[in-house]
Amino acid sequence: MPERIDVAILAATGSVGQRFVQLLAGHPWFRIAELVASDRSAGKRYADAVNWRLSASPPEEVRDLVVKHIEQPIRSPIVFSALPGGVAGEVEAMLAAEGKKVFTNARDHRMDPDVPLLIPEVNPDHARAIELQRRSRGWREGFIVANPNCSTIHLVLALKPIYDAFGITRGIVTTLQAASGAGYPGVPSLDLIDNVIPFIGGEEEKIEAESRKILGTWADGRFEDAPLTLSAHCNRVPVRDGHMETVSLELGRRASPAEVADVLRSFRARPQELELPSAPRQPVIVLEQDDRPQPVLDRDLEHGMASVVGRIRPCPVFDVRFVVLGHNTVRGAAGASVLNAELFYREGLL
Amino acid sequence: MPERIDVAILAATGSVGQRFVQLLAGHPWFRIAELVASDRSAGKRYADAVNWRLSASPPEEVRDLVVKHIEQPIRSPIVFSALPGGVAGEVEAMLAAEGKKVFTNARDHRMDPDVPLLIPEVNPDHARAIELQRRSRGWREGFIVANPNCSTIHLVLALKPIYDAFGITRGIVTTLQAASGAGYPGVPSLDLIDNVIPFIGGEEEKIEAESRKILGTWADGRFEDAPLTLSAHCNRVPVRDGHMETVSLELGRRASPAEVADVLRSFRARPQELELPSAPRQPVIVLEQDDRPQPVLDRDLEHGMASVVGRIRPCPVFDVRFVVLGHNTVRGAAGASVLNAELFYREGLL
Amino acid sequence: MPERIDVAILAATGSVGQRFVQLLAGHPWFRIAELVASDRSAGKRYADAVNWRLSASPPEEVRDLVVKHIEQPIRSPIVFSALPGGVAGEVEAMLAAEGKKVFTNARDHRMDPDVPLLIPEVNPDHARAIELQRRSRGWREGFIVANPNCSTIHLVLALKPIYDAFGITRGIVTTLQAASGAGYPGVPSLDLIDNVIPFIGGEEEKIEAESRKILGTWADGRFEDAPLTLSAHCNRVPVRDGHMETVSLELGRRASPAEVADVLRSFRARPQELELPSAPRQPVIVLEQDDRPQPVLDRDLEHGMASVVGRIRPCPVFDVRFVVLGHNTVRGAAGASVLNAELFYREGLL
Amino acid sequence: MPERIDVAILAATGSVGQRFVQLLAGHPWFRIAELVASDRSAGKRYADAVNWRLSASPPEEVRDLVVKHIEQPIRSPIVFSALPGGVAGEVEAMLAAEGKKVFTNARDHRMDPDVPLLIPEVNPDHARAIELQRRSRGWREGFIVANPNCSTIHLVLALKPIYDAFGITRGIVTTLQAASGAGYPGVPSLDLIDNVIPFIGGEEEKIEAESRKILGTWADGRFEDAPLTLSAHCNRVPVRDGHMETVSLELGRRASPAEVADVLRSFRARPQELELPSAPRQPVIVLEQDDRPQPVLDRDLEHGMASVVGRIRPCPVFDVRFVVLGHNTVRGAAGASVLNAELFYREGLL
Repeated sequence: MPERIDVAILAATGSVGQRFVQLLAGHPWFRIAELVASDRSAGKRYADAVNWRLSASPPEEVRDLVVKHIEQPIRSPIVFSALPGGVAGEVEAMLAAEGKKVFTNARDHRMDPDVPLLIPEVNPDHARAIELQRRSRGWREGFIVANPNCSTIHLVLALKPIYDAFGITRGIVTTLQAASGAGYPGVPSLDLIDNVIPFIGGEEEKIEAESRKILGTWADGRFEDAPLTLSAHCNRVPVRDGHMETVSLELGRRASPAEVADVLRSFRARPQELELPSAPRQPVIVLEQDDRPQPVLDRDLEHGMASVVGRIRPCPVFDVRFVVLGHNTVRGAAGASVLNAELFYREGLL
Repeated sequence: MPERIDVAILAATGSVGQRFVQLLAGHPWFRIAELVASDRSAGKRYADAVNWRLSASPPEEVRDLVVKHIEQPIRSPIVFSALPGGVAGEVEAMLAAEGKKVFTNARDHRMDPDVPLLIPEVNPDHARAIELQRRSRGWREGFIVANPNCSTIHLVLALKPIYDAFGITRGIVTTLQAASGAGYPGVPSLDLIDNVIPFIGGEEEKIEAESRKILGTWADGRFEDAPLTLSAHCNRVPVRDGHMETVSLELGRRASPAEVADVLRSFRARPQELELPSAPRQPVIVLEQDDRPQPVLDRDLEHGMASVVGRIRPCPVFDVRFVVLGHNTVRGAAGASVLNAELFYREGLL
Repeated sequence: MPERIDVAILAATGSVGQRFVQLLAGHPWFRIAELVASDRSAGKRYADAVNWRLSASPPEEVRDLVVKHIEQPIRSPIVFSALPGGVAGEVEAMLAAEGKKVFTNARDHRMDPDVPLLIPEVNPDHARAIELQRRSRGWREGFIVANPNCSTIHLVLALKPIYDAFGITRGIVTTLQAASGAGYPGVPSLDLIDNVIPFIGGEEEKIEAESRKILGTWADGRFEDAPLTLSAHCNRVPVRDGHMETVSLELGRRASPAEVADVLRSFRARPQELELPSAPRQPVIVLEQDDRPQPVLDRDLEHGMASVVGRIRPCPVFDVRFVVLGHNTVRGAAGASVLNAELFYREGLL
Repeated sequence: MPERIDVAILAATGSVGQRFVQLLAGHPWFRIAELVASDRSAGKRYADAVNWRLSASPPEEVRDLVVKHIEQPIRSPIVFSALPGGVAGEVEAMLAAEGKKVFTNARDHRMDPDVPLLIPEVNPDHARAIELQRRSRGWREGFIVANPNCSTIHLVLALKPIYDAFGITRGIVTTLQAASGAGYPGVPSLDLIDNVIPFIGGEEEKIEAESRKILGTWADGRFEDAPLTLSAHCNRVPVRDGHMETVSLELGRRASPAEVADVLRSFRARPQELELPSAPRQPVIVLEQDDRPQPVLDRDLEHGMASVVGRIRPCPVFDVRFVVLGHNTVRGAAGASVLNAELFYREGLL
């Protein structure tokens, strides 16, 4: 077994930061060496600084790590960023300039013309954009690789096999998103007891734009968007974890629900070939029961790394419609960047 | 003040039955004379028979009414039916044959070719179908008038002014429906704590088919469906009352969100002209705030009789998209039939 | 009808502030003349400044009032304070020194030896303490009158008739408190989806201490605590409004559940005699059903101004046990101070 | 590794039955050989018959077992019963008469004078009562061993070390119980959205009576109740799993909170000595944080087999008060009987 590579986690006490800690504790290739947070936490033991909300208590191996301040130098070669959008952009660019390999969940660089917006099952070749990124930004070793928005990831994992097999021209998506997507403290309980909120700022635009980039191509040193148009309606619902999405698709050519189910079920890609440690054996799971997937039952399938599809049926308006569910802070956030880093590791890009 | 007309309520102890009782207690034109229920309740005082769930206790005026058994003769000329689908059809037809004017919330007769599926603001002229109904069924005085499914009503109230002004060719709808839509006991709490259910049996078909009938025409003794196609995705969410729906529409001709908002806001129809007692002053309320409507805040606008629209904006795939919310057991069920009966009363059709 | 007296509401955009606005809009004796809030809101129309969460929109009569900054002079003679504990104390004392009659929901002055901690049904005679208050503090016209903590009020309303009739020596109380008790944004939804929190900072101490003061006496220019000992366990539960409390009491002399129910049911006091506008006709309502009171069904009885008791039964350890429920932001906060002000008005103490 | 003993599970498709299946799948000593259920399920594959609600799908090893009808003969020597109270009694007695070793979660035989109401950490010596049971009932090999009510178990696990160290004379308990305690479908969602229910039929009596039996003695062929008196208030709250209880205790002799914490923390008993497979390493876990335990964070500690205590502090009325939480369908039901069977196995009583 090779020595594990040291990694730092930015915003390690927050909601997504805690997921990074949980997923990287005991990781076969990476070792949590540095936990970075804000003024309030810096200088404390992680177990004292964090309001751990994922289980009874944080993993043993990080409990005694002393939290670093964001302005202290980082010595790990790999950085996972759970920084909030708006703040993340500048910090991440600075770290990349210093030579760090930055894998980020933040939105700031996602749509940059030289930043891969990566889902290893979907567009692993976009990873090559980091060469342009380094060249154009004058970075020698560092780079930034972003994972998509939590709703986008699960949507695109379900779209990809269909897109490849039948083409997709248009789609309409409505999300029912979990509270954890807004972090902690996040959504006030008075907004979600006996209530749903039909609005999540910026979310619809992200789903619509990111999907086109991810399903698009990297060629001749530039990204070209996929020629499909999406419309998203985003809602917050009283669920802890697990974003659900209803999807209606217009296909490039006709396909029966059974054919769609087949391509989803048989979908395997680079992470499965490479047997990456965090890769689900099956990226898209198809359930047969009428009333599935459901967040509380299905969000943890494949340790939260799969997208779960159900209710595949003809759409009277377009061609096919279905429901997709996925864990929003595992595969939809921290797990997504961990898988990105694993892909880079095995592809020799670290 | 004229004497009030006696009415009977079928399935008066159930969830929708309780709403009928609540809305008809103290009604200016109708007087609750008979409450009808099943074996378990028959013969008891209503206050003893009912597990009243709408407030602290049932209205004073019905507390001491003795519940009748469904097989006892009914003497009121008007019957409101909250019977469950499947059971309702036969009972209602029998009562109509006996001369009763039946206003029903049940699904059984909704799609019959001679039964008006009525929303007084939308298709009041469909009421004329009762002439054919009487003729073809050999009924002399009785008839059956149905109100649509709870999700359909609020959707169609929002579609109608748009349909008239700009045309609608296609639409995709996702619902987030309240628990009360399934009655009591209805949905188990283990299905809705930290969970949503992406399936409601029969609901999608109802929305898709009923909308076409209601927006269609009654001419030459037959209903003709409106030439629009809808696709519905139905979900149950942990909300007590208030169905929310996201809607994307392809219009017959282009219209800006502002134009759409205008036709919704200025929509007035027959119930408003006639000043029916249960009619909302404004059938469709348009909210400006980004994050509205919300069930807990907006379901009771206009005493639960309005549909509340928000987030009107361009749709990248079709033309316009928005959110509509409405109270599912008031305007979406019992209140719908009460308004139907009020229309018949004022139009001299009783 | 006499002219209405102008009143100011401090922290008028917050959760309790909104309740003050709701309860005072259209009040027969008081007129909302000034709404006061912090930097963020000052200078805006109230309808623009407030994130109104009690219904679809704020009352018509206050929508256009321009919110004042807390440092601007107040001209109304009566001030209702919804200021947060910690901040409230100094501001309220300053206003009283300027001659304002301050009715506060804040905790800061509640246990002061010269401040009435007033529940008009329970200790109206404590109002006389304002004479000492003025004398000892050198205030000429102003004063401070506090209402108790939200859990204390409903507990003490239920204890008072029992205390008077049978004596109470000891009691153990467990609360199940609603989210609105923590204001807005208050409790994060991730803390209350599929969860309860067995801790509310400072709450247990307040219940234990305030009850003794309120049930105690004002004589010879000092408060004397009632000689009863309480132990409180406080919990937050996923409910919007309505605090529920289980109570076990050791009585001074034996009493059957029926006797306890009788004294609760027949309890009437000064606000009922005076027919104060916000007074419940019956301060304590006793329900017979096994499974009542319940927050969603019973919190709005008497417009949220009553305490609702159920399940009165023998206690194997002490003498009697029961459940009490009450609306925590109506009778438990804003409504409590409004009733205090009404008592002062009718008693000629303004 | 010895061959595993075949076991049957009665009411295997229900809520507690599913937990038995989950906990016994892959058990080192027991092998699920028979799954028994009612008419509706009998004859079907378990995976088809069950509405599995504990995770995405039932364990592989039971999916293809064909469900037996309750009237078919059972051939396994050990029977775990998840039958509902009322039905269970007769069936279990019949099976014991046939020679089966019955470990039951049902209430029917719990208070029988010859049936051990067993918690292996608390009263393992009560197991000896089965000798009397066999003698008095004329059973040769079979017997019935019951586990206590779900709230009782966690309460008594926390009481036991305190009782032994300091004595307990009286106690008052309020429960906040999870929805899963009522099975599936169980509590309607309309009862638990924005609501709590202050009543669970029969629960208070069970807690009060069972605790005395369990903490009591088995001597001279009879059970003698422990001389302590409890008063219980039971409530249902919107939580999936995990019963929480607030507890105030009068002790036989004074003890500081720190002393109480010490005896709880250092509590180890027979299952820990014997290293029973399902035994928690630590039966009672003590948390230091102010706001713990919480159901969503702490119910799964020790795989749901521990009781978790927090907020140990002086009680102004009695001596000490605290909160205890435990998983109600694991340690509080199926897990309790599994542990009972493991004790019998290792003690050579099977």
